[in-house]
Amino acid sequence: MSGGTIVMKFGGTSVADATRLKGAAKRIVEKFEAGHRVVAVLSARGKETDRLISDAYEISDAPEPREMDMLLSTGERVSCALCAMAISDLGHEAISLTGSQAGIVTDTSHTKARILDVRADRITSALDEGKIVLVAGFQGVSTSKDVTTLGRGGSDTTAVALAAAVGAEECEIYTDVPGVFSADPRIVPEARKLDIVSFEEMLEMSSSGAGVLQLRSVEYARNHGVRIHCRSSFDHSPGTVVVSEQETMENPLVTAVTHSTGEARVTLTGVPDTPGVAGRIATALAEANVNVDMIIQNDPVSADAPAEMSFTVPRDDLRTAKGALAPVVAELGIGGIATDESMGKVSIVGAGMKSHPGVAAKVFTTLGEHQINIQMISTSPIKISCVIESDRVPDAVRALHSAFELQGEGTIRPEQPFGEFAS
Amino acid sequence: MSGGTIVMKFGGTSVADATRLKGAAKRIVEKFEAGHRVVAVLSARGKETDRLISDAYEISDAPEPREMDMLLSTGERVSCALCAMAISDLGHEAISLTGSQAGIVTDTSHTKARILDVRADRITSALDEGKIVLVAGFQGVSTSKDVTTLGRGGSDTTAVALAAAVGAEECEIYTDVPGVFSADPRIVPEARKLDIVSFEEMLEMSSSGAGVLQLRSVEYARNHGVRIHCRSSFDHSPGTVVVSEQETMENPLVTAVTHSTGEARVTLTGVPDTPGVAGRIATALAEANVNVDMIIQNDPVSADAPAEMSFTVPRDDLRTAKGALAPVVAELGIGGIATDESMGKVSIVGAGMKSHPGVAAKVFTTLGEHQINIQMISTSPIKISCVIESDRVPDAVRALHSAFELQGEGTIRPEQPFGEFAS
Repeated sequence: MSGGTIVMKFGGTSVADATRLKGAAKRIVEKFEAGHRVVAVLSARGKETDRLISDAYEISDAPEPREMDMLLSTGERVSCALCAMAISDLGHEAISLTGSQAGIVTDTSHTKARILDVRADRITSALDEGKIVLVAGFQGVSTSKDVTTLGRGGSDTTAVALAAAVGAEECEIYTDVPGVFSADPRIVPEARKLDIVSFEEMLEMSSSGAGVLQLRSVEYARNHGVRIHCRSSFDHSPGTVVVSEQETMENPLVTAVTHSTGEARVTLTGVPDTPGVAGRIATALAEANVNVDMIIQNDPVSADAPAEMSFTVPRDDLRTAKGALAPVVAELGIGGIATDESMGKVSIVGAGMKSHPGVAAKVFTTLGEHQINIQMISTSPIKISCVIESDRVPDAVRALHSAFELQGEGTIRPEQPFGEFAS
Repeated sequence: MSGGTIVMKFGGTSVADATRLKGAAKRIVEKFEAGHRVVAVLSARGKETDRLISDAYEISDAPEPREMDMLLSTGERVSCALCAMAISDLGHEAISLTGSQAGIVTDTSHTKARILDVRADRITSALDEGKIVLVAGFQGVSTSKDVTTLGRGGSDTTAVALAAAVGAEECEIYTDVPGVFSADPRIVPEARKLDIVSFEEMLEMSSSGAGVLQLRSVEYARNHGVRIHCRSSFDHSPGTVVVSEQETMENPLVTAVTHSTGEARVTLTGVPDTPGVAGRIATALAEANVNVDMIIQNDPVSADAPAEMSFTVPRDDLRTAKGALAPVVAELGIGGIATDESMGKVSIVGAGMKSHPGVAAKVFTTLGEHQINIQMISTSPIKISCVIESDRVPDAVRALHSAFELQGEGTIRPEQPFGEFAS
């Protein structure tokens, strides 16, 4: 097989030690020798980012975001430089580029920057010279010429953005699992590897807890039509292909059960029933870069009684969220803030549920049969999420996976032929 | 005291752990609060560079120099980002810059790049905004937009180059020793800290083994008239000031004894006695970036007999030197190469010896009295160096230090008043 440009992305566990890093270099070279132009995006090695973060918190309780980016961006550069050395030893020319050198221009929102533009000239001219190009993931350069990072998992977004910019035929995401599963195999051992998933399903799965692909990278891939192939870096078997809905053969009723155990609930009591209040609260949280998930507002019983508003945020963002809300609470005369950090979430995702209204009822019944109390519910055309107590999440995942018969055999959707997306 | 711009450079041991790094931040802030504009240049933390080098050699026996630079340059960035966080916690605004962002433009000689230009606009505008500027030492950006490094100890050169570019009144080099000594105190416990040294003396001392200041930084300081103050980062006592000869009060006969135990001798036998041979050899070594120290050529006894040529190189460069010489040896019909890795060197340096011809005789006599065999000799107007067996170096240093009465009291040169160069 010979062909066009492929972007390959290797996560931290795939480059954690010298043996694995050389293994990644070998896979890159195999792809190159098969006739492809290859751009590889690497993450920081193993626990390197965690080490740098802990170095920062040893110095400061609230590290400057700009400096955090300067600090954290070094991890991916190390991986790329080392991988270029390994490729050179395998007899090919490789060049490592920082996010800035690769032309990844972002906004100035440090630690959570968004890509504004990819100026891939330096990449394409290196490819034209027959070089393998290695790009430090997770980072870019802001419009004010500072180093920025894209947030956790940002290397996936780097890879997809580069794939779009260079017109790659596929963006391969190499990871330490064989692909996307019908549920977390650590919780459901009989979970099935999915061969093909639509962008829309993958978006819902990523946003509801499936850690294998970062949400923003899937959004970017959908918006730019980049075919993602999520696969293991430790063997050559095909993984999960993420493509547009037209390309999936049929829509399963339910594709997967996802979950998260790291949620927190914030409840605002005594919220004045005046227009614009919810908007002010949401703006304050958005400006602090806190992703609010579910929002529930209890309408007051009498017309002038204050309302109650609850929403969930990632538990790690709870402190930031409370800090961002404090001035708004004071200014608007909100009664109080209560928080609960022991929240989790279980979701089912499937493109086919659009046309099957009975799915929600089955979810609620199943959880009820297992005495799992549902605290909040949110739905989309292809997803149903329930906020539950964090410690009941594993039971809920197993119950739903079994109720919708997602295990290996007997699945509603037939297996895709392997050959179709073998590399 | 309030005044102009000061460049402060902190070495790896001064930022090795969180406590020390915060200590460096505190000193930077003290200087800023005293009314100075402050640019601080930081090295990589502790053993970080060694760790990165060992990571590289775990991947490749001969890492690509371009990638080595991408790899190693991350260490200083980490130090700067962390220090900026610490300064921020002390209530001042700091900004960390990479060598590239700081405008340090170098040639393309990876791992040993030379500074071509310093475009300090971004530094000066940050200073104008009242910020403390932190610059990653040891690195720059090449004319072809690749990350380069300046070689071991290159952070000193960064500091001096920035001091010249921003017109700093002093370049303070903070290190783990109190200053420059009359000999290595680990070998000569009674060695004396020198209060003032001329550029010329410091050049000879750096090139003959005094590790406290990198040779190139002293050259750069001399050429651009940058006053260096080499001092301890662990206390506030004044260190050693390096200034032009006119500023030193008087020229001591002998200022210091320096030494090195890491020399290797290369002897070429059967060298054809034709013009240009020595030039070809020197060119080959220079192109491989090997610094040749002493060179001795034995004239042949008869007019057409082949000559013998010996020279010393740093022991770490011996492999590179042999590799660079191999094609020249073959091409010129040189008889053979012999090497000896057990060489060391002892030197005495003093601006006053220019006018005292008896110094050399006293050196040779002193070494002879201690049965130390001199293998090669080289002299400059203010230095005498002798190549000796490596394992006799400590004895030689002690003997010369004592013979020239360099210890604390009874020194030929009076102490300088401390106040003159207190910060």
